[in-house]
Amino acid sequence: MPDTLPMDYKDSDQPSLYVVGIGPGSSDLLPSMAIAALNRSKTIVGYSRYIELLPPNLTRGKNILSLGMRKEKDRCCLAIESALNGSPTSIISSGDAGIYAMAGLIIELLEQKDLISKLNLAIIPGIPALCAAAALLGAPLMHDFAVISLSDLLTPWSKIKDRLAKAAQADFVLVIYNPKSKGRPDYLKEALKIISQFREPSCPVGIVRNAYRSNQWRKIATINDFDPNLADMLSLIIVGNSETRQVSQYMLTPRGYRLD
Amino acid sequence: MPDTLPMDYKDSDQPSLYVVGIGPGSSDLLPSMAIAALNRSKTIVGYSRYIELLPPNLTRGKNILSLGMRKEKDRCCLAIESALNGSPTSIISSGDAGIYAMAGLIIELLEQKDLISKLNLAIIPGIPALCAAAALLGAPLMHDFAVISLSDLLTPWSKIKDRLAKAAQADFVLVIYNPKSKGRPDYLKEALKIISQFREPSCPVGIVRNAYRSNQWRKIATINDFDPNLADMLSLIIVGNSETRQVSQYMLTPRGYRLD
Repeated sequence: MPDTLPMDYKDSDQPSLYVVGIGPGSSDLLPSMAIAALNRSKTIVGYSRYIELLPPNLTRGKNILSLGMRKEKDRCCLAIESALNGSPTSIISSGDAGIYAMAGLIIELLEQKDLISKLNLAIIPGIPALCAAAALLGAPLMHDFAVISLSDLLTPWSKIKDRLAKAAQADFVLVIYNPKSKGRPDYLKEALKIISQFREPSCPVGIVRNAYRSNQWRKIATINDFDPNLADMLSLIIVGNSETRQVSQYMLTPRGYRLD
Repeated sequence: MPDTLPMDYKDSDQPSLYVVGIGPGSSDLLPSMAIAALNRSKTIVGYSRYIELLPPNLTRGKNILSLGMRKEKDRCCLAIESALNGSPTSIISSGDAGIYAMAGLIIELLEQKDLISKLNLAIIPGIPALCAAAALLGAPLMHDFAVISLSDLLTPWSKIKDRLAKAAQADFVLVIYNPKSKGRPDYLKEALKIISQFREPSCPVGIVRNAYRSNQWRKIATINDFDPNLADMLSLIIVGNSETRQVSQYMLTPRGYRLD
C-alpha cells in the first residue's frame, strides 16, 4: 500500500464501500464529495434518524437500510455484506464519520472478516458536531481542546472522570459529547463538578442542540449557573478554559493575540 | 439576543461579515453554505495560500485582499473595515474557521472596536484538518482525543508540555497541529518524548500532509520509529491512545465494541 493515496480513483478501484459523515444534517453543510459518494451508492445504510436528514434526491430509488439506535454492529455488517455483493454502498453517520462514529467499527469488522484487502473502502470526512456547535456559539475552540464522550457503554466511568479531571487541570477547553441518556442522567452534573474544581465560577459553558436543523437551540451560561437538565442526547456542550469569556452573545476563547 | 438563532436570515439581517472555513482546500469538500457566503461576498480576505485554493468562479470579479503569513490581525481589520463600508465580506481560513483560526480574532476585534452590535456576523463551519487527516489515516479518532498546537508564538512552551503530558497520561488520542516551524524545529521531537512516557513503543503515529490536495501524503509509523523530520508546517500528526493499533494500511483506535 503506497503512502501516497491517489485522489482520483481508476474505474477498477472505485470504492465499493463509503463511510460518509453527513455533517449536522443540513443539506447545505453536506459537501459534494459526500453527495457524490451517496449518488454513486445503490445502497445506503444508517440510523433511521440520520437517513431522514438526507435530501430526498439522494435516497430516491436506492436500497435504504434504516436501523434503530444501538444497532451499530448490525448496520456495519449489512453495509459490508451489501458492498461484497456488488452493490456500491454508503454507511452514514451524522457529523464526521471518524469521531465516535462508524469508521472504526467498519475497519474492525473488515479485519475480523478478513476482508480488508478485498473491499475498496473510502472514508469521507464531514463537518463534526463540535465545529457546528462552536460556530453557533462564537469561537470557543481557538485554543487547545479535549473531546470527551460521557457515554460509559464501552468505557468505564472512572476512566472518563480521570480524563475530565486531567483535561480540565491542564486548562483545555472541554467538548462534551453524549452528555446524557436515560441510563445515566447525572453524569453531566458530576462531570461539571469535576471540571469546576479547575475553573472560576464565571467560566462560560455553551450548549447547542440540533445545530443547523429545525428546532436549533443554543445557550451560554456559566459553570456556576448552568443547569445540567438543559442537556439531552442531541446536545453538545463546550466548557471554556481559564481564559474563555462571554462577549455579547458569543463564547470566546482567546488565542492569545495582543490587540494593542 | 434570543437563544434560538434563526436559520434563515431576513433580508435586513443578512450577514455583512462571514468567517468561512474552506475545509482542506479541495472544492468538493467545500459545502454549499460556504459557497453561498463566498458568492454573496463582494470582498474576500485571506492568507494568500488559501485564497489560491478557492475555485476561480468564487473569486472572479471580487475584491480580493490576499495577505502573507502572520498578518492575522491585519486581515481581520481589513475584513471588518470592508464590511463596515457596506461590502458583504468573507474572511477565510483553511479547515474550520473556529479551530485556531480567524473566528476568535474577529470577535475580539469587533469587541475592541465596539462593533459587536453594529455588524451582522456569521461563522460558517468547515471540515477541520483533524477530520481530513483522520479520514485518510483510517479511524484514529473513535475515542476521546485532545487537540494541541505546538506553536508557542502565543502560548508558553511550558504550558504546551503540561497539556501534552496530562493528555497522554489520561490516555487521550493526541492530535498535533502546527508541529513544526523554522523557529522551533525540535518541539515535535520533545512532544513525542513526553507522550512516549505513557505509550508502548508500538503505539501508532500517523502523519498527513496536504490532505485532499495535490501532493497529498500520509504515513503511519510507531512512536518508536517515527521520524520527526517528516513533519513540516503543512502536516498534522495523530498519536494513538493505549489501544490504537495499525490494521493493514489503517490506523484504528477501537471504540470498545465487542465483536464476538
